[in-house]
Amino acid sequence: MKGNHSEILTVIKVGGAVLEDEASLSGFLDRFVALPGLKILVHGGGRAATKLSEKMNVESKLVEGRRITDADTLEIVTMVYGGLVNKKTVAALQSKGCNAAGFTGADMNLITAQKRLVQNIDYGFVGDITKVNHEALANLLNLGIIPVIAPLTHDGKGQLLNTNADTMASAIAVAMTNSFTVSLVFCFEKPGVLSDPDDGSSIISDLTPDSYQISKDQGIIHSGMIPKIDNSFDALQKGVKQVIITSASTLDINNGTHISL
Amino acid sequence: MKGNHSEILTVIKVGGAVLEDEASLSGFLDRFVALPGLKILVHGGGRAATKLSEKMNVESKLVEGRRITDADTLEIVTMVYGGLVNKKTVAALQSKGCNAAGFTGADMNLITAQKRLVQNIDYGFVGDITKVNHEALANLLNLGIIPVIAPLTHDGKGQLLNTNADTMASAIAVAMTNSFTVSLVFCFEKPGVLSDPDDGSSIISDLTPDSYQISKDQGIIHSGMIPKIDNSFDALQKGVKQVIITSASTLDINNGTHISL
Repeated sequence: MKGNHSEILTVIKVGGAVLEDEASLSGFLDRFVALPGLKILVHGGGRAATKLSEKMNVESKLVEGRRITDADTLEIVTMVYGGLVNKKTVAALQSKGCNAAGFTGADMNLITAQKRLVQNIDYGFVGDITKVNHEALANLLNLGIIPVIAPLTHDGKGQLLNTNADTMASAIAVAMTNSFTVSLVFCFEKPGVLSDPDDGSSIISDLTPDSYQISKDQGIIHSGMIPKIDNSFDALQKGVKQVIITSASTLDINNGTHISL
Repeated sequence: MKGNHSEILTVIKVGGAVLEDEASLSGFLDRFVALPGLKILVHGGGRAATKLSEKMNVESKLVEGRRITDADTLEIVTMVYGGLVNKKTVAALQSKGCNAAGFTGADMNLITAQKRLVQNIDYGFVGDITKVNHEALANLLNLGIIPVIAPLTHDGKGQLLNTNADTMASAIAVAMTNSFTVSLVFCFEKPGVLSDPDDGSSIISDLTPDSYQISKDQGIIHSGMIPKIDNSFDALQKGVKQVIITSASTLDINNGTHISL
């Protein structure tokens, strides 16, 4: 059954330093709670995973910002993403009157993935998303539940898989266009995409495919921002209404960088 | 709204060694999946928590079998119960065609508790259950979801709390009598309550308040079994239809020890 597309759903991805500091997280969650309409929160937790790895003497291996997930590391991210970060966030949201519930992709078979094939690099237990169970997520939203999703998927054969949180958020946003008008918001440390990384006021307020190409050609947008923005255009092409990159400390969706086709 | 009491719900608690060994867990879950009717699984994870504590050089303090939960230990049990054990169990159940979803008491505000008051012993971040949100659990069951519940609660003010898994199972069973005819099954290493702990065939097949009193007086039932059985009679007095203590390796509810009023 198709839902009512006039209903607006906001998928928000939060990661980085804001998850590490209790006061920052609480401030972010206050603004998340205040956001009107239906919403889904997707979180990361890489820094906490790195910290636990250090405590347990498990080496954190990152290639181009992506974590190599061996068996020990999978246990660590399952504990940190699925347990510590997810449940702390849910308990904090509940204390703010928000009926949150935490999930991984295995729960309710929400997000299925396949283990990434080994080409040049063996990423280990890393999943590439094959299906988002948008009906199950819509059922939760209809029960008044705010899903809080950890970046873990499963292969349906009993194997949990580590999955990039930006990619999770984007795939969820796209799948939910089956039932809702969807906005996708990436929250991070900076107030948006900056033309000068050292100047917080140099926000690029709008990006279209043309202006993005020009910024890339001029070297203004580079490295880590490129997959995030490519992801955003991909989501827009697949039916997401708007993508916004903004500050986690303000969660101001009227400012930041608005990406459109 | 009251549910249909003719519908049977089985609340199953599993803990101990069966959670530690992949083959044992898989065998137990096969039998869990085969069990007809609606069901809820409550799991422990104390051994895995002790193991992780050792790896992290955090001392495990137990008083009368109950874990003293300081801030570091709360992080560990949140990771192990809410993350590792819960999500591995859910992924395994999903692979067996069972639509499981993992929860703590914080998720959907399922189970509220208050931090245990300090009397002789300061148990730290340990919760005594104040409310089970049976309507929310019934909503999940009505969606065809099998809840898999980790022994963590919250105080509604943002604090997660460690809570005994036997007590969780018992409180959930009692609360669900609002909507269902409920059986409560405690699974453990032995095939039931034994009159001779060294003889696995010496199962006490039935226990009533009278026969329990006699067994206690004769010293046949003692120490660790007493709170489990007291808990069982308490659940029966509060409306649970039957309580069974049986083997995790067979999950045979026709055998084991049947406790009744």
